Amino acid sequence: MTRTSDIEGDTAADNVGDGDGETIAPTPYVLTDAPGPLSRDELVAVDTWWRASNYLAVGQIYLMRNPLLREPLRPDDIKPRLLGHFGTVPGLNLVWAHANRVIRQRGLNAVYVAGPGHGGPGPNACAWLEDAYTLLTPDIPRDIDGMGRLFHQFSFPGGVPSHCAPETPGSFHEGGELGYSLLHAFGAALDNPDLTVFCVIGDGEAETGPLAGSWHANKFLNAGRDGAVIPILALNEYKIANPTIFARIPEAELVELLRGYGYDPLIVSGDDPAPVHQAMATAMDTCLDRIAEFQRAAREDGDTARPRWPMIIMHTPKGWTCPPVVDGERVEGTFRAHQVPLPTARTNPRHREVLEQWLRSYRPEELFDEHGTPVALIRDQVPEHPMSLNPVANGGLLVRDLDLPDWRDYGVPVDQPGTGQHEATRVLGGWLRDVTARNPHNFLTLAPDELASNRLQDILEVTGRNWQGEVGPWDVALSPTGRAVEVLSEHMCQGLLEGYLLTGRHGVFTCYEAFIHIVDAMFNQHAKWLDASAQVSWRRKIPSLNYLLTSHVWRQDHNGFTHQDPGFLDVVVNKSPEIVRVYLPPDANTLLSIYDHCLRSLHYANVVVAGKQPGPDWLSVQEAALHCAKGVGIWSWACHNDEPGTTPDVVLACAGDVPTLETLAATAILRDRLPDLRVRVINVVDLMRLLPAEEHPHGLSDPEFDSLFTRDRPVIFAFHGYPWLVHRLTYRRTNHAELHVRGYKEKGTTTTPFDMVMLNDLDRFHLVMDVIDRVPGLGERAAGLRQDMVEARLRARAWTREHGADMPVVADWVWPSAAIPGD
Amino acid sequence: MTRTSDIEGDTAADNVGDGDGETIAPTPYVLTDAPGPLSRDELVAVDTWWRASNYLAVGQIYLMRNPLLREPLRPDDIKPRLLGHFGTVPGLNLVWAHANRVIRQRGLNAVYVAGPGHGGPGPNACAWLEDAYTLLTPDIPRDIDGMGRLFHQFSFPGGVPSHCAPETPGSFHEGGELGYSLLHAFGAALDNPDLTVFCVIGDGEAETGPLAGSWHANKFLNAGRDGAVIPILALNEYKIANPTIFARIPEAELVELLRGYGYDPLIVSGDDPAPVHQAMATAMDTCLDRIAEFQRAAREDGDTARPRWPMIIMHTPKGWTCPPVVDGERVEGTFRAHQVPLPTARTNPRHREVLEQWLRSYRPEELFDEHGTPVALIRDQVPEHPMSLNPVANGGLLVRDLDLPDWRDYGVPVDQPGTGQHEATRVLGGWLRDVTARNPHNFLTLAPDELASNRLQDILEVTGRNWQGEVGPWDVALSPTGRAVEVLSEHMCQGLLEGYLLTGRHGVFTCYEAFIHIVDAMFNQHAKWLDASAQVSWRRKIPSLNYLLTSHVWRQDHNGFTHQDPGFLDVVVNKSPEIVRVYLPPDANTLLSIYDHCLRSLHYANVVVAGKQPGPDWLSVQEAALHCAKGVGIWSWACHNDEPGTTPDVVLACAGDVPTLETLAATAILRDRLPDLRVRVINVVDLMRLLPAEEHPHGLSDPEFDSLFTRDRPVIFAFHGYPWLVHRLTYRRTNHAELHVRGYKEKGTTTTPFDMVMLNDLDRFHLVMDVIDRVPGLGERAAGLRQDMVEARLRARAWTREHGADMPVVADWVWPSAAIPGD
Repeated sequence: MTRTSDIEGDTAADNVGDGDGETIAPTPYVLTDAPGPLSRDELVAVDTWWRASNYLAVGQIYLMRNPLLREPLRPDDIKPRLLGHFGTVPGLNLVWAHANRVIRQRGLNAVYVAGPGHGGPGPNACAWLEDAYTLLTPDIPRDIDGMGRLFHQFSFPGGVPSHCAPETPGSFHEGGELGYSLLHAFGAALDNPDLTVFCVIGDGEAETGPLAGSWHANKFLNAGRDGAVIPILALNEYKIANPTIFARIPEAELVELLRGYGYDPLIVSGDDPAPVHQAMATAMDTCLDRIAEFQRAAREDGDTARPRWPMIIMHTPKGWTCPPVVDGERVEGTFRAHQVPLPTARTNPRHREVLEQWLRSYRPEELFDEHGTPVALIRDQVPEHPMSLNPVANGGLLVRDLDLPDWRDYGVPVDQPGTGQHEATRVLGGWLRDVTARNPHNFLTLAPDELASNRLQDILEVTGRNWQGEVGPWDVALSPTGRAVEVLSEHMCQGLLEGYLLTGRHGVFTCYEAFIHIVDAMFNQHAKWLDASAQVSWRRKIPSLNYLLTSHVWRQDHNGFTHQDPGFLDVVVNKSPEIVRVYLPPDANTLLSIYDHCLRSLHYANVVVAGKQPGPDWLSVQEAALHCAKGVGIWSWACHNDEPGTTPDVVLACAGDVPTLETLAATAILRDRLPDLRVRVINVVDLMRLLPAEEHPHGLSDPEFDSLFTRDRPVIFAFHGYPWLVHRLTYRRTNHAELHVRGYKEKGTTTTPFDMVMLNDLDRFHLVMDVIDRVPGLGERAAGLRQDMVEARLRARAWTREHGADMPVVADWVWPSAAIPGD
Repeated sequence: MTRTSDIEGDTAADNVGDGDGETIAPTPYVLTDAPGPLSRDELVAVDTWWRASNYLAVGQIYLMRNPLLREPLRPDDIKPRLLGHFGTVPGLNLVWAHANRVIRQRGLNAVYVAGPGHGGPGPNACAWLEDAYTLLTPDIPRDIDGMGRLFHQFSFPGGVPSHCAPETPGSFHEGGELGYSLLHAFGAALDNPDLTVFCVIGDGEAETGPLAGSWHANKFLNAGRDGAVIPILALNEYKIANPTIFARIPEAELVELLRGYGYDPLIVSGDDPAPVHQAMATAMDTCLDRIAEFQRAAREDGDTARPRWPMIIMHTPKGWTCPPVVDGERVEGTFRAHQVPLPTARTNPRHREVLEQWLRSYRPEELFDEHGTPVALIRDQVPEHPMSLNPVANGGLLVRDLDLPDWRDYGVPVDQPGTGQHEATRVLGGWLRDVTARNPHNFLTLAPDELASNRLQDILEVTGRNWQGEVGPWDVALSPTGRAVEVLSEHMCQGLLEGYLLTGRHGVFTCYEAFIHIVDAMFNQHAKWLDASAQVSWRRKIPSLNYLLTSHVWRQDHNGFTHQDPGFLDVVVNKSPEIVRVYLPPDANTLLSIYDHCLRSLHYANVVVAGKQPGPDWLSVQEAALHCAKGVGIWSWACHNDEPGTTPDVVLACAGDVPTLETLAATAILRDRLPDLRVRVINVVDLMRLLPAEEHPHGLSDPEFDSLFTRDRPVIFAFHGYPWLVHRLTYRRTNHAELHVRGYKEKGTTTTPFDMVMLNDLDRFHLVMDVIDRVPGLGERAAGLRQDMVEARLRARAWTREHGADMPVVADWVWPSAAIPGD
């Protein structure tokens, strides 16, 4: 994969054969006169930037000393491990150089997305030329000392990664895992009407599914409201060891493909710098002229037709300007230039010699003055607002808090716990409707065609679904200015939202719980960005990534096995505790309270799992606020004989709406049938409270945990997800040996809600049996009750098979609130 | 998402408004005379099949009794929960009807892939018409009783899912999570030269990233060697609540897109059955004529040019033939027809009345005889080899065991443990080369451009990389008959392999460990297929899904944080223990042994994580065979003073190559510095051995576990992945309280291998400190050693920062084998 880079560049070593054969240094090229829009001075200027950034990129890959070659190159000057991929760098630098020309000329507000993997040396170099490091990382000034540190830090222990990363000035896109560059670019452009995003997409990355789908993001970009994305397909023909698909289909077929995606591709092709510069300048001007006209038509004439946005196919050699032949094998323009063209430069004298000639082929003496500072011709090309310092790429600088209506005003009335019923996500939808209305420029809701299915359709009372395509006669609620983005691609929802958040805005992604696994990898990468960016001094916190997962595992009885998977939580909790938060609100008011908290938070990944089906309302608004603030708490109104200062016989704990319902139903049975039993009921909203305090900022201290869960009494824990997750969180707790968790196991079939709960032994009857089996001395006394529970399960089971629905006595059960005072 | 279907069809209820307004029954259509290739008889025949399958589909969705409406429809005849999506069904049935015509006419060997979600009623209906149920599920014969059971079982408790699933005759594709239909189709066609795959792709599914990328699978289909895929884009314009992208771009743009993907789309469009039948017949004939010519040219003339394969765009109304208007809202041809067009038919008399008229509009009296058996006109359309009974779709029937060379012949010599070094995956590559050579028709290796990076390039000595596109002058090892599939899309690798396995062949998917998360969701779905299909009596076991994960977390020090993620194991172990196997071979010979086992196995997902960097050889071929058979074992040559029948002071356990190295290095230090300490060393190859025997077939019994890990001595466990995974597997074990796990935590940065190990406290020095801290009474005695360890770490740390590499004393360390006899 282009993201590969092996220790000691050993794959590259494999690529370049056995060390026999000649190694040829690149010849310094003559900048010819080529016709085009650039004057000779402009041509020289842009080429000078390109040479300087290429020099700095090669320096980062190879040199740990002697940055300007003021002494002959010695083995010790060269890093022992050669990392970073040169192959894509000249293309990245070419785009940056030309972007700067048009930024200056047109006063653009622009950012740059580098899709190709391990191309970090390019944007690092350009940021250094723009003097961004002086401001952000003062120990890397724009002089020979800074250049030395720029080189030294690159892919060196304690330094910066080989791809664009939080450490890269001007980058809001991590280049580690491939496929998301275009989505991040479009996400950044949404609601940023003045922004231009130059997005370079590697032709390797273009093979990934997420990237292949994301070209369609242009159907959600409004020329009036949003900024522009200029996709630049870096067609350098090769990945690590293979040609790319896009390079080995006829050019006409590639153009058809991109036109079919709705773009108008302009081709910049060649291997002679001067004509390529002229062609790139022409292409950039054409793109920007067309974009300006589209935006003018939309903004002044109210034209809502979807434009055929321009884009660029940049067809230039892989590793352009690197040694053409190494050890007798063709390198420049082939897959052998993908990584490090001279992999043994430290130990092989001929490689070292060629490396020096290669570096000198850029004529560093023309590029940097005696202090190592870029010459005026380069410095003068730095725009007033350079891409490497654009605050859009450090989105935390631009965050405006959401204007949130008081969630308490949207709560449902709860006089007695469990007597009323609501669809939790529908209640949340009412609040999100007004969040949407109050924040018309910096809040989005994204869903894979599930907005209404997930009961958030109230949002559509104040906005439409974003849609820039044609509209059919029966289509409803589509709008070119819609603030709900619906596309049947979890990758697109996640990627667009990431781009939107990374540039300082807010949003919610609602998804079926099982299918959120589709974006596991994207979640992981975003969580790592949040974690790593928090370590970068100049980065500011960005809005949290908020998930609303519904249609959850316990309500996928009917859709069956394929739709049952609560395992996203297991993926999430592996990430840094500084970043991840998991909430399982048991009812509508707690969901409101939690979501209010999430939308106020910064720099977290908040995973909220909530039901969309009618479910009991347990807590009033006031109680919900308190319970959610605690994150875990005893529900004293549900406990039985659990007097303060005493220890109960058993703890029934629950997390998640369905487990909470079953736990309370079990409690009601115990109260009725074993009136002497001392029962404590605990509900967990904030799953991270279960972790030790030293493992997570939300973790309960051991004394707090013990005071809730006791030190030695059986705990029957009804859990939303896979049961072992609770063990993984609690294995260090005092009372862990007495913790018995019921949750989901892979046993799905097509069934009914209660039958599915029974299949997993999470039902009220089984929980009662668990209590009987676990509380010392209870077995004999409760044998009759146990038998009743066995029979109740059999009856319920048989009923579903006959009627295709749950027994009314189960489905219509309500918490016997009235019984409370009498206890 | 199209996969949605809500309890009681309530989203559909939302869709169709508030119950006011008129509800109109469909008018039985007159089959007009339309010009085309079908004679009047053929036209009537295909339309009769279509009506019959549509009738049976509506019946499945609604009826639990009275299947042939021989009595007036009563409320109790209607299921209480209405599930399944009618919207896509008429299109699915249309394709099946026409496929049968050409199968008969041309004697095709064909299978059918139904991509659209919850479209199960269609293929179920066609399979019943083909009498497949009689053979496979004898209680569902092709008569009125069988029809009743076919209807009753559909999406009913204990019945079959609403999408195509293992229970569906003729399906090898699960329709639960969307996006993989085309990959499964292409995977099935590979190495099946006589096969034709009719693959229906929903226009909703087409929005997903994986599907968007998978059109390019045609670059890997060889007209000479492989079968054919006919993609049929079901352009019915709508998802649950939204129009589709493909339906709301101009048709010319859609055609450009598909041509750009390399297809030649034929359009079948309309809403009048007769002309649509004629157009579909024309399109099918054209596709098959062209395919036949491509295959002839490739097979007879040796033509290797990539064909422009034909495909069909089927542009027909959503919910075609359903009630046009319900409660005053337009339904047929709109998103409101997506799910259940009459959601309250059980309780609303007018809906029930219209349902009956709808069912009768198909004229069931013309379709089924007095026994409920399809009339001869239908029965005669069943091909001799119907798609619903094609053994390709029950691939286990076709499995041929691989011809495997003896892995022992490929092992590396190990006279003394830890003295030699090999790259484990490179050694495996030698064996896989010969596996590839010996099995030229039923074994594939797939990689996302990582074959060589992952050290499996020896395979290329006997085959090329599959490539049907153009070939550039510098491309190497590409071949139209190549048996390695490389494409920079984990989704494509996984999906093609799934299709290949599901149809009874074998393969390996090699991937960077971190990026395998990209296919978490696909893994989950395939594991569920394996689990569920094992419950279907007529299904046979298929070859295992074999992963080779390398470039693993501990060797991604240089690529940094984004490349470090061992969490796929956490995803895997959530799935059914009957299905999942996880192996962490510590060296080259154990990797060979494990992989031999994996390639012989059936119906598992085997996840093997192994190193590609040079690492110590610990076990000889004979020892490796024994150790892998046990799955976990004491390495007695590494133990110290661990006499049989005694209990050691401490257990050092390890799983994974790097943790094993560090554990042995720690053991060597302990042996040298604390010669009285009794140390046991345990290596775990088969991670599932840690689970209790009642939780996993590989699980150790508690006595076995205790005899290895002791009942009360400290266990310092150096683990490859996130440390809590070991706790999750062992929390029930006797000695769990004394288990201390070191593993990966999210702390990545750009560094060196040993520095990364140190960052995670998994290094030899820290393991020694752990021993000192955990073994009772050792603290004071070993204070000096502890301080030495602290200092050794500081020195090693400082060295990496200065030199960019690990200290030679660490990097070059070898196990002091010579010391063994002297102990």
